[in-house]
Parts: sequence; C-alpha cells; structure tokens
Amino acid sequence: MDIKQELKKRADFFDKQLEKFLNNGTPETLYDAARHLPFAGGKRFRPVLAFLSCEAVKGDVVKVIPLSIALELIHNFTLVHDDIMDKSKLRRGLPAVHIKYGEPTAIIAGDLLFTKSFESMHNIIDDLSIFKNVEYGLIDCIREICEGQQLDIEFEQRKIVSEEEYIEMIRKKTAVFFQYAAEAGTILGGGTKEQANALNEYGVSLGLGFQIWDDYLDISSDEITLGKDIGNDIRNGKKTLIACHCLSHATGDDKKILEKIYGNQKATEQQIKQVYEILKKTGSIDYAKKTAISFCEKAKEALEILPETEAKQILLSFAEYATEKRIK
Amino acid sequence: MDIKQELKKRADFFDKQLEKFLNNGTPETLYDAARHLPFAGGKRFRPVLAFLSCEAVKGDVVKVIPLSIALELIHNFTLVHDDIMDKSKLRRGLPAVHIKYGEPTAIIAGDLLFTKSFESMHNIIDDLSIFKNVEYGLIDCIREICEGQQLDIEFEQRKIVSEEEYIEMIRKKTAVFFQYAAEAGTILGGGTKEQANALNEYGVSLGLGFQIWDDYLDISSDEITLGKDIGNDIRNGKKTLIACHCLSHATGDDKKILEKIYGNQKATEQQIKQVYEILKKTGSIDYAKKTAISFCEKAKEALEILPETEAKQILLSFAEYATEKRIK
Repeated sequence: MDIKQELKKRADFFDKQLEKFLNNGTPETLYDAARHLPFAGGKRFRPVLAFLSCEAVKGDVVKVIPLSIALELIHNFTLVHDDIMDKSKLRRGLPAVHIKYGEPTAIIAGDLLFTKSFESMHNIIDDLSIFKNVEYGLIDCIREICEGQQLDIEFEQRKIVSEEEYIEMIRKKTAVFFQYAAEAGTILGGGTKEQANALNEYGVSLGLGFQIWDDYLDISSDEITLGKDIGNDIRNGKKTLIACHCLSHATGDDKKILEKIYGNQKATEQQIKQVYEILKKTGSIDYAKKTAISFCEKAKEALEILPETEAKQILLSFAEYATEKRIK
Repeated sequence: MDIKQELKKRADFFDKQLEKFLNNGTPETLYDAARHLPFAGGKRFRPVLAFLSCEAVKGDVVKVIPLSIALELIHNFTLVHDDIMDKSKLRRGLPAVHIKYGEPTAIIAGDLLFTKSFESMHNIIDDLSIFKNVEYGLIDCIREICEGQQLDIEFEQRKIVSEEEYIEMIRKKTAVFFQYAAEAGTILGGGTKEQANALNEYGVSLGLGFQIWDDYLDISSDEITLGKDIGNDIRNGKKTLIACHCLSHATGDDKKILEKIYGNQKATEQQIKQVYEILKKTGSIDYAKKTAISFCEKAKEALEILPETEAKQILLSFAEYATEKRIK
C-alpha cells in the first residue's frame, strides 16, 4: 500500500468539500484573509484522520464532512493567531496572514475561522444528541489547545520542565486534536463506545509520537551542518523532549554547562556545539527517537480490537509513517 | 419605576451566575487573563436584555442563565481582541488584558472566552432542537460581529461612508448582539415565533439607538470644552453617523473644508473648531440625536404585541433610558 497515496486521496476529497464550504463573503478583505491559509495547502492530517476513523468502523464518510471542515478551520485559526504571537513571517511558503493583511484583520480572520468551524458542525445531519456530544468534544478540545499554547509560552521562560510536564503540554497543544479527530470520526461513523475509545487512544498516541518525532527530526536533520535552527532553539531555551530529558539527566560539568548555555541568547557557535555534544552524550536525542517510536507503537496496539478493513491498514501504516518514513 | 434599579437587580443576579461558571483553571495566568475583564464590572446589558425578554413572555429566567453567560463572555472576548487591535491601554478603569498579561496571552485569553461561551451554551437544558437553533443564532451573531469589526477598520480609511453603510456597520458590530440576546431570551422563555420576532426587532432598534446616542453623547458632552476626544475622532477620520451625514450633506466651501480636514492627522485646533461648526451648521449633530431617538421609538413600538408585564414596562423604560437619560 502506498500510504502517501492513500492519505492524498482523502486530502483531495477534503479539499473539494472545503472549497464548497468556505466561500467568499463581505467585507471581502476579511474573507480573503480567512481563506488565505486554509487554501494555501497543508497536509489535512486531521480531516483525513477523521475520515479514516469513520471508515475503520465501516461508517459513511459523508457524515464526517462537517466535522472534517471544522477540524481544519480550527487548526488554521490557531495557526493564524500563533503566527501573530510568535511574530512568524512565513507559513506554508506564503506570508503569514498578519503580514499580508495586518494584525487587526488577522486577529478577526482567526476569530471568523473559529466561528465558521462551529457553523460547519451545525451541518452534521446525525441524531441531535450525537451532534451535541460531538460538538461538546470540539469545545473541550479547543479549551485544551488554548491551555497548551499558554503552557508552551510559559515553558520557554522556565529553567527546568519535567518530561511529564512536556508531554502534557504537547498533548494539549497538538495531540488532543488528533485524539478528538479520531474519536469524533468514529462516533459519527456509528462506531461503538469501545471503538471510539480505541481510536481516541490511537489519536492521542499518534499525536504525541508525531510531535516528538518532529523535535527529533529538527535536530537530527540539522546534524551535519548544525545549522541555525538548533542554535535558535538552544538560545531561546525551547523545551523539547530532548531538552527536558537532558536538563534532568545530565550530571556534573555537563549539567553546569547546559544550565549556563541553554536559554542564553548570547551563546556562541562554539557553545552551541558543546550543548549539542552533551545532548548526544546524555542519550537525549536517542531517547526522544525511541519515545516517538514507542508512542506510535502504542497507537498501533490500540487498533487491535478493530475489524480488518483497508482503513485499519492505512491507520497502522500512518503510525509507522509518522516516525520511520516521514520527513517534515 | 426605577429603571436603573431594575437593571441592576438583574445584573447582580447575573454576576452570581458568572462567578459560579467562570472558574479558575490551569495554567493560572491564562485563566487570570480570561477572568480579568468579565470580573472588572460592566453593565451586563446583554444578559439583562436576555432575562427581560424571557420574563416578557412569562418564561423561567433560570433557563436563560447559560445563554446570558455566553453573551457576556462573547462580548468580553471581542473587547479583549478589540483592545489589542486598537492598542487601547485601559478598559473599565483597569489596564487592558494585553497590557497586563502581554499580547500573546491576551489573544489566547480571548480565544478561551470564545470557547467558554460555547461551553456555557451546552448547559442549556431545553429541548435539543431549541438548543441547536439558539446556538446557531449565536454563531451567526459572532460572524456578523467579526464582519462589523472589519468594516469599522475599513471605514476609517475611506473618505466617504454613506449613512446606510454606517448603519449596516453598527448593526453588525453592536446591534446584532442586542438583537440576538432579545430573540434568544424569548425563545428560551418559551415565547411564540411572533413574540421572538418582536423582541428581535426591539433588540436591533435598541442597539442602533444605543450606538448612535453614544456617538451623539461623545460630541455633545464635549461641546463646551471641545476636548481632545472630538479632536482625535476628527483627525482619525472616525466615521460616526454625524460624520457620515455631514460628509454627504455639506455643500460649497463647507464640503471642501470638511474633506480637507476630516481624517487629517495634522489638523490644528483652529481647524477642529471649524469642522465642529460645520457639523452643527449642517444639522448633523441634531440629525444623529433625532435618529437615535427614532430608533428607540421603533424599539418601543415593536413591543406592542406583548402581554402587559412588569418586564415589558422595564423594556419600554430601557428604550427611553437608552437615549434620554443615559450618560455614558
């Protein structure tokens, strides 16, 4: 099975639905700003995960369309607001919304995407109690994303963040969305409570594996050149699993050097290299790699109770792809 | 009847409900930021309007509590984000959220208030189809508020804005919220379709009257001193009904002076006085006053079909209070 092909097939189907839903409106500038990111591409992982979860319980994917649109719009709303907070200039190879349309319009465009995601949820044709249940899940999910985003901001200012705290932060900021997409997709597909729990477990583990693998890729793909990305993360004191592990496991001189340099904006190239060597020596890079793979294994195990379907095979491959084959 | 007393009684009842709902949470800083404005006072007009509309159709106000909380949280969410956009430093006599907690946390706090308002809506204990209907109204209302906010930004950059365009902008930015509060309060109170339409009409007319009266108060209360507020509005090219009327009704030299000075950041004190005289001479200040009163009359007329209740009397007095007695 060509996993990329299978994901793309569903992403293309999703794109057609999004095109139908997210129309122009007035004032035009506001709608242009709101449409800027959703139509600038993106891998559509969240909608695709919702479709696959529905398929895995032999449900009708048409029922999942409103949810899939809501998921992608919420994801995009958080990106628009995050880019303002982080003062990021580029996103998906294009100017960020606040760069192209100004900060005020970008804030409103994010708010509009938030609103439109709930508008989409109201297109769910299911039983009203299922609609209410699934919509409440989305509300809970967004609350956790807000909390996770705030934790991420606060962690940058802290010297030490435990591994447990880091996992909790990325669970809220990233994994909760995969968790919700998979569970809600299952519910709308008519899955049982047990199946919904299994997909919930799959989603959260996949999300955690995904994010930790990203951290690992950032540092390992940069290994040869030891380019500016690692340098920036070290200077900004960015708390990845690698950093959290190393800051709590390094000892003696290594610990002292780490505490002095990690989060020091004025760290020299020489010092960055020194930190990198300590990250390797303490086994932190390897630890992150193993942790990501182990979360993806856990994701796969969660699917055991599902009937044998093509969707199940794709979900299993997706969990492997998330760590082994995926390049950011 | 003491209208202020009647409004305050219901605002106090509301405050107790809000205190119960909007709890602390983690991360603490985020929840402190989100609670900053809602607990800094405010007149609670939207919740009170929802309660009164429910009472006017002899409904049980307890059923309106989740809606009233949602209304106030959405109102506060828009204030948090608006203050960032406008770079306002103060709100309700306290530092704005982004001044006290920084812009990133303020953006997230606004998003969290948005989320919590939908969480509150899910506490509606009514029939599921009524819940869905009322919640959809809220979504529609927020979409219009986003559109109105963007129009307001765009109008500042434009030379001429017609009266119709101005009315449409404030309808979306302000009045739609009163409109929705009144209509949804009636529906949850078990009112008929005809009653819901009447309260809808009352809400939108009251909202328009309210906003135009604010514009009028800004300029007339500043009349003696001709203080810096009028000066700033004129220099920023702020489009109020007074400005829109004057820009399209002034003729000859007046028109030329107006076009030259209105929106000119470098206008002198002398020029500001000149513009003020033209606003008076063209009858634009008086026109705004009359328009505000006429919208409030329209609001009162809409209530004719309602049964005689204390709530109806309060709503009638509220519409008078909105223009005749109210001081900002």
